[in-house]
Amino acid sequence: MIKVYTISGYEEVGKNMTAVGYSDGRREEVVIIDMGIMLDRVMIHEDTSIQKFSDKELQKLGAIPDDRILWKSRNKKVVAIALTHGHLDHIGAIAKLAPHYPDTPVYGTPYTIKLAKGEVKSEEYFEVKNPMYETEFGEIVQVSENIAIEFIRITHSIPQAAMVAIHTPDGIVLHTGDFKFDNNNPLGERPDYKRLKELGKEGVKVLIAESTRVAEPTKTPSEAVAQMLLEDFFLYEGMDEKGLIATTFASHIFRLQELIWIANKMGRQAVLVGRSLAKYTGIAKQLGLIKMKGARAVRSPNAVRKVLKEVSQARENYLLIVTGHQGEPGAVLTRMADGELYDIGKDDTVVFSAGTIPNPLNYAQRYKLETKLRMRGVRMIKDLHVSGHASREDHRYLIRLLNPENIVPAHGEFRMLTHYAELAEEEGYMIGKDVFVSRNGYIVEIP
Amino acid sequence: MIKVYTISGYEEVGKNMTAVGYSDGRREEVVIIDMGIMLDRVMIHEDTSIQKFSDKELQKLGAIPDDRILWKSRNKKVVAIALTHGHLDHIGAIAKLAPHYPDTPVYGTPYTIKLAKGEVKSEEYFEVKNPMYETEFGEIVQVSENIAIEFIRITHSIPQAAMVAIHTPDGIVLHTGDFKFDNNNPLGERPDYKRLKELGKEGVKVLIAESTRVAEPTKTPSEAVAQMLLEDFFLYEGMDEKGLIATTFASHIFRLQELIWIANKMGRQAVLVGRSLAKYTGIAKQLGLIKMKGARAVRSPNAVRKVLKEVSQARENYLLIVTGHQGEPGAVLTRMADGELYDIGKDDTVVFSAGTIPNPLNYAQRYKLETKLRMRGVRMIKDLHVSGHASREDHRYLIRLLNPENIVPAHGEFRMLTHYAELAEEEGYMIGKDVFVSRNGYIVEIP
Amino acid sequence: MIKVYTISGYEEVGKNMTAVGYSDGRREEVVIIDMGIMLDRVMIHEDTSIQKFSDKELQKLGAIPDDRILWKSRNKKVVAIALTHGHLDHIGAIAKLAPHYPDTPVYGTPYTIKLAKGEVKSEEYFEVKNPMYETEFGEIVQVSENIAIEFIRITHSIPQAAMVAIHTPDGIVLHTGDFKFDNNNPLGERPDYKRLKELGKEGVKVLIAESTRVAEPTKTPSEAVAQMLLEDFFLYEGMDEKGLIATTFASHIFRLQELIWIANKMGRQAVLVGRSLAKYTGIAKQLGLIKMKGARAVRSPNAVRKVLKEVSQARENYLLIVTGHQGEPGAVLTRMADGELYDIGKDDTVVFSAGTIPNPLNYAQRYKLETKLRMRGVRMIKDLHVSGHASREDHRYLIRLLNPENIVPAHGEFRMLTHYAELAEEEGYMIGKDVFVSRNGYIVEIP
Amino acid sequence: MIKVYTISGYEEVGKNMTAVGYSDGRREEVVIIDMGIMLDRVMIHEDTSIQKFSDKELQKLGAIPDDRILWKSRNKKVVAIALTHGHLDHIGAIAKLAPHYPDTPVYGTPYTIKLAKGEVKSEEYFEVKNPMYETEFGEIVQVSENIAIEFIRITHSIPQAAMVAIHTPDGIVLHTGDFKFDNNNPLGERPDYKRLKELGKEGVKVLIAESTRVAEPTKTPSEAVAQMLLEDFFLYEGMDEKGLIATTFASHIFRLQELIWIANKMGRQAVLVGRSLAKYTGIAKQLGLIKMKGARAVRSPNAVRKVLKEVSQARENYLLIVTGHQGEPGAVLTRMADGELYDIGKDDTVVFSAGTIPNPLNYAQRYKLETKLRMRGVRMIKDLHVSGHASREDHRYLIRLLNPENIVPAHGEFRMLTHYAELAEEEGYMIGKDVFVSRNGYIVEIP
Repeated sequence: MIKVYTISGYEEVGKNMTAVGYSDGRREEVVIIDMGIMLDRVMIHEDTSIQKFSDKELQKLGAIPDDRILWKSRNKKVVAIALTHGHLDHIGAIAKLAPHYPDTPVYGTPYTIKLAKGEVKSEEYFEVKNPMYETEFGEIVQVSENIAIEFIRITHSIPQAAMVAIHTPDGIVLHTGDFKFDNNNPLGERPDYKRLKELGKEGVKVLIAESTRVAEPTKTPSEAVAQMLLEDFFLYEGMDEKGLIATTFASHIFRLQELIWIANKMGRQAVLVGRSLAKYTGIAKQLGLIKMKGARAVRSPNAVRKVLKEVSQARENYLLIVTGHQGEPGAVLTRMADGELYDIGKDDTVVFSAGTIPNPLNYAQRYKLETKLRMRGVRMIKDLHVSGHASREDHRYLIRLLNPENIVPAHGEFRMLTHYAELAEEEGYMIGKDVFVSRNGYIVEIP
Repeated sequence: MIKVYTISGYEEVGKNMTAVGYSDGRREEVVIIDMGIMLDRVMIHEDTSIQKFSDKELQKLGAIPDDRILWKSRNKKVVAIALTHGHLDHIGAIAKLAPHYPDTPVYGTPYTIKLAKGEVKSEEYFEVKNPMYETEFGEIVQVSENIAIEFIRITHSIPQAAMVAIHTPDGIVLHTGDFKFDNNNPLGERPDYKRLKELGKEGVKVLIAESTRVAEPTKTPSEAVAQMLLEDFFLYEGMDEKGLIATTFASHIFRLQELIWIANKMGRQAVLVGRSLAKYTGIAKQLGLIKMKGARAVRSPNAVRKVLKEVSQARENYLLIVTGHQGEPGAVLTRMADGELYDIGKDDTVVFSAGTIPNPLNYAQRYKLETKLRMRGVRMIKDLHVSGHASREDHRYLIRLLNPENIVPAHGEFRMLTHYAELAEEEGYMIGKDVFVSRNGYIVEIP
Repeated sequence: MIKVYTISGYEEVGKNMTAVGYSDGRREEVVIIDMGIMLDRVMIHEDTSIQKFSDKELQKLGAIPDDRILWKSRNKKVVAIALTHGHLDHIGAIAKLAPHYPDTPVYGTPYTIKLAKGEVKSEEYFEVKNPMYETEFGEIVQVSENIAIEFIRITHSIPQAAMVAIHTPDGIVLHTGDFKFDNNNPLGERPDYKRLKELGKEGVKVLIAESTRVAEPTKTPSEAVAQMLLEDFFLYEGMDEKGLIATTFASHIFRLQELIWIANKMGRQAVLVGRSLAKYTGIAKQLGLIKMKGARAVRSPNAVRKVLKEVSQARENYLLIVTGHQGEPGAVLTRMADGELYDIGKDDTVVFSAGTIPNPLNYAQRYKLETKLRMRGVRMIKDLHVSGHASREDHRYLIRLLNPENIVPAHGEFRMLTHYAELAEEEGYMIGKDVFVSRNGYIVEIP
Repeated sequence: MIKVYTISGYEEVGKNMTAVGYSDGRREEVVIIDMGIMLDRVMIHEDTSIQKFSDKELQKLGAIPDDRILWKSRNKKVVAIALTHGHLDHIGAIAKLAPHYPDTPVYGTPYTIKLAKGEVKSEEYFEVKNPMYETEFGEIVQVSENIAIEFIRITHSIPQAAMVAIHTPDGIVLHTGDFKFDNNNPLGERPDYKRLKELGKEGVKVLIAESTRVAEPTKTPSEAVAQMLLEDFFLYEGMDEKGLIATTFASHIFRLQELIWIANKMGRQAVLVGRSLAKYTGIAKQLGLIKMKGARAVRSPNAVRKVLKEVSQARENYLLIVTGHQGEPGAVLTRMADGELYDIGKDDTVVFSAGTIPNPLNYAQRYKLETKLRMRGVRMIKDLHVSGHASREDHRYLIRLLNPENIVPAHGEFRMLTHYAELAEEEGYMIGKDVFVSRNGYIVEIP
């Protein structure tokens, strides 16, 4: 018998955590998928330093999942923690919550695991001792008597994102993680449709599907579209510009690669400025996921200061790539807008290769950032970006590929889960019967 | 010949300042109307303390009007500063800008002048020496050889709001200030339609009209509607509640009076908590504009702490009225939501008798406030409120009452001014000919 | 054991129909609540004449409830049809569906039953023979061995709206119908809080609650607010106007009464023009629900033509009240805008005492109507109106009054039902356990 | 001296018409640019057949430009009518208005002129005798003593779109027509930046710029993005589908070409169904602008019926391309949704390669269309589309390329023109001084 513990991420976008239990009547074995953080809940309290807080404090703030539901019964063993991909809303609470399951091994693709290790390293409250294993796509890992897990290659806005298949005697439980169906990713990553079809044939007992953008009545554009948007600006009009500054997600390695390619084509040097850009590209480079030729990344406060001074004196030779697309306090672009580090002004164009994450706090920060940049005469070009999340028609296609017996929509506010449920009904499912809209802290028992 | 100097408030809602000049060929006499502040521009810089800043610093931030256009020519004398009403976006820059016109007297209705004196008193950078005179409705004050000014009774969300008529040899220039046409204000204030009709007959050369809500295709509801909304909740369902906390604008004396009446009817004591509530009601009481019977206002940090402790132990005996409806940092409600001052929680209901002022910074602050209150289990009732600004059909009525020769829309973002201009075109005016959409720092020369 | 058949109105606003079954183990007795129509689905097909269509055709179009779920099992008897109030989305399908339950009596308050009889009379496809009984508030009608029904006085935008209590051996099932909590209705109707509290004490097993406006985070304004909005315009500015034309819902008897009172105060004659206005006020007058003193209603095409000609020649003597606030084809105002019946133009002001019902078809019709009126120079004043539906905080109050064991949100699109469920969770309920989000054609079995 | 007659299209999106006059003191020579129709104003009156209506009737409805301002003065001669491109809001009134200027020659690129001739041919009220000339890009045509006109290659959503330069002794007046800056159009059309830069150097006296999408703070995506969106769906997921139906603008030749290419790659036959598709592709084919290899277009009612029957019996062999993306009554897709022509249903997927044109009438028609398709179980994929209009940053780039002395924003509602003016102010212009927000029927005299 299979249970889905919808621990967290079922009432918000953020702090994702789900668990899947298989019981043979005697004992239940459980696999946890993801342990994420909700930055929003940290941001509304000004003085929060995550690294120094305890699990209980962060749970009280609503910043990390409340996993108490997993501790209640006796005859239950958590046998594995699987991480779908390296975004913080999926791995950011690992240093706080993995200690609840000591010795339980953590699995993920190499890029994900390396990022998770970084989280563990910077933790200041807990010491995390769980073993952490890098897993390859295709590999099937037997994690307990009854359960094996498998990572399936999928496309998202970070490298090596995976769907996780949990093989049980009752059938497969497939957790999508975050995904889109991108057939034209410039870096070559592609969904493993073949394996998905095979799983569909084997028999998917439960599909646990993210639902962030299920309300968009279309197919999500390929990353190739973002590349086209950037090239269409930079390689034509951009050639006439002096200072060029791009900002995007530090973990969005494809996007960064495109920007580096563009800089090369323009005959400019790409300079990545900011701690998190250095972190994500550093690990990516190590794994061969990005080619930094023609680019350099600076990290330490001194190096940042020095390089920005250098750039400001010959702006036409560089393409700056900086943090701060959400107007985050302390990010490089935010500090520039405050008149620090670089005299940003009329000679500069800022390209936002990112949307505003829909949340009043981000809207306010972006508003501050843009107002300040506008007052300095900076030109801004927004929305040269595409989403990393599947839209309604991608979700429909996945359902048709897998033909799952049951569906549990995940990763979204209640209204997103219900939108997914409506889609499932269009495909012949019935709410309460084989598609289950759940809430944080509930258990869905699969009939 | 008449000139309208559209100094500020023509590209934003905030920092209003207009000047009207009359020239007899030899010399120009000028009346300034309002000197306001733009809080938004202060808020985007975290460490701004207005009182300590210079005029130049605040102008650079865009926080107060840039009035340099008035200093340029020689043959010009500023003969009076008229204040339409006591809101900060109309009087908040007086301590910074009045010193530019030393000795020039400042006029306004008693409540407005008393508030303006408060601004001057708390100023820390400048010493302001301009004489300040309280003017009665109906009085016509000769302020120079050619110009007399007159304050006309109108309704707005603060007592003693006025339209200002500037009588010149070329005809009347009427500045609306902020207004609505409220025929049922519970405290009895009413627009002086009679005088407006008389002015219309005398001949209005220029109407300078606020345009904040001109896009709303209706008539703005009376303050009596707000009273009804509050009574319909408090006097029925509210009778079953324990802790009751209302929050509204500190300068909204009518609304505060209604809340005090309601408290009396409920058999509860109204307790006004917060510095600005004490300030505005204090002056209002002095002028007989509010009856504090059955209420008390506390101001000093110690008194606030003491009274809130007292209230928290017998919540059913009080109606708390607090600052913080926009989630302002440091306001009483904001601090309550952070767990300070009063253990707000499941036994409390917060009534927002105020909308959210449309600005990303306010949305973010309200979001923080409401999230925190919700996490504590507080019940919230929103939008028991009506606006103080005229809607499209009120504006149309004013145009028909006055039949002005020329119109200059004011007090709004560019799109609001253009909405007003479209309304004027419906009434037979023509953009560029007799209705003028202007910008900050421009001069409209009346043909 | 109790079952709630969520037949229709659980995926849309419109065509409401719910049934409640009580089974003593041997046999099930069923009460149907409401049989409504969905006008939207009729409107998207141009050539639909409801009166002439069969039940099956209309069900296929999605215009009336699909009630097949009630026919399936054998040991079941429909013992009563209860109508909550007289709006078409609650009674408009009675002539098509009551014949499915021959001989089953229909109950409702007098105004509701008289309107339902009108529906039956104009039906052209079926002959309806069900007995129809007028029931008084307070009366408890034993409709079968185990079930008694009771109509409880509540406020809505039509007279004599009722909540329906179904008394069973397992406890009370309370269906709210459509409602708001209005404590200041100018015509004196008021919610029967006393009886609701008594039912709460007796024990409400299931609350079936409408959820149309549950997302509005406030309390719905009283009808007294609409009266204030109308008086604030008509009795001041309106006194200067020539042609005055108001339009509102024909069944909104309170609103019509207010308009007649206003006409009397203005010294004008109220003239109600249009077939449906005559119908609804006619029945209301018969029951003493409206006083037509100072007013007259015209209905026949000839009379309409004649009276409008008369009015057009002395507009200042009349207040026209017409159909057409949604721009419905064929309505009086729509025809006026097309240049028929009355030369509407610069001398006329149209007051919309109604919002636009949120639906793309209505938006388009209103757009056509307003564009045509604007081209003729007509002045329009919109939104002098308040809703008849409970907002979030009204719903919360009802839950606290009744403290029901289980809740089934009804009357809304899926997202409205889920909004209601979220509210219920705030009040301590749990989705799937004691609050049930259902869909058309489902059965909720109460545990 | 130069005058810009902002005849029409300055208060709406639609019925564009502008004229440029040059006067040497004695006599004025005038060039008209575009004569468009406003379909919205036709749609709100149900029974309008444009072809049979007179100019005066259509002007009264607001459906075509009111050009009376051009007839008033004597010393004025209209020497040429220039058409920027073939969309109906630019050429649709030519048959009604060209007769006002008998003998005046009409100029345009070949595709535009051929479409304009089609308009003239189908006209039933007037006989149009103006000579019509096909002009090549680069050619400079002397149209009168003082004026020469030139068509400059630009990109838009129809082939051979042009900017029009009017060379006068006082300098160049450049009218943009509709445009975007697309550097990656799959069919190879590209903006003639070189010529634009030359004109900038020669000196542009006035820029008349469309402003439809100037509020979008980005650069408009290339048509290559639309191609990517279509390929990403059709060539992967589409390969598993049975019935495939695409709908787009009949004049959007690039998009149709991409769909035909896609059909070829999928091994399906592209079948274009509908009168207007046949019209636009027919002329395009004749000019070598589209390759119909692997495609066929059917036009006559009989052929349509026959081919759709054929397709319906082997859906997997075809890619249908049909009219009806806005839900237009009578269009092929609209009729399919009504159950005519083809039994559309569960086996079919409709791809909307078009947005909904923002207008309440279109929203309503799309709503009807989509509701009907959904009721039949049809899958819909929306928004595989990009706009043909320049966004804010494209407009900024044009201003920087040309550095014009004066700007007149055109082609938009008042708020769009004012958005453009705000952009111009960011680039150093000043409203009323060198950027002019005008209205229908006004004259802007260039200082």
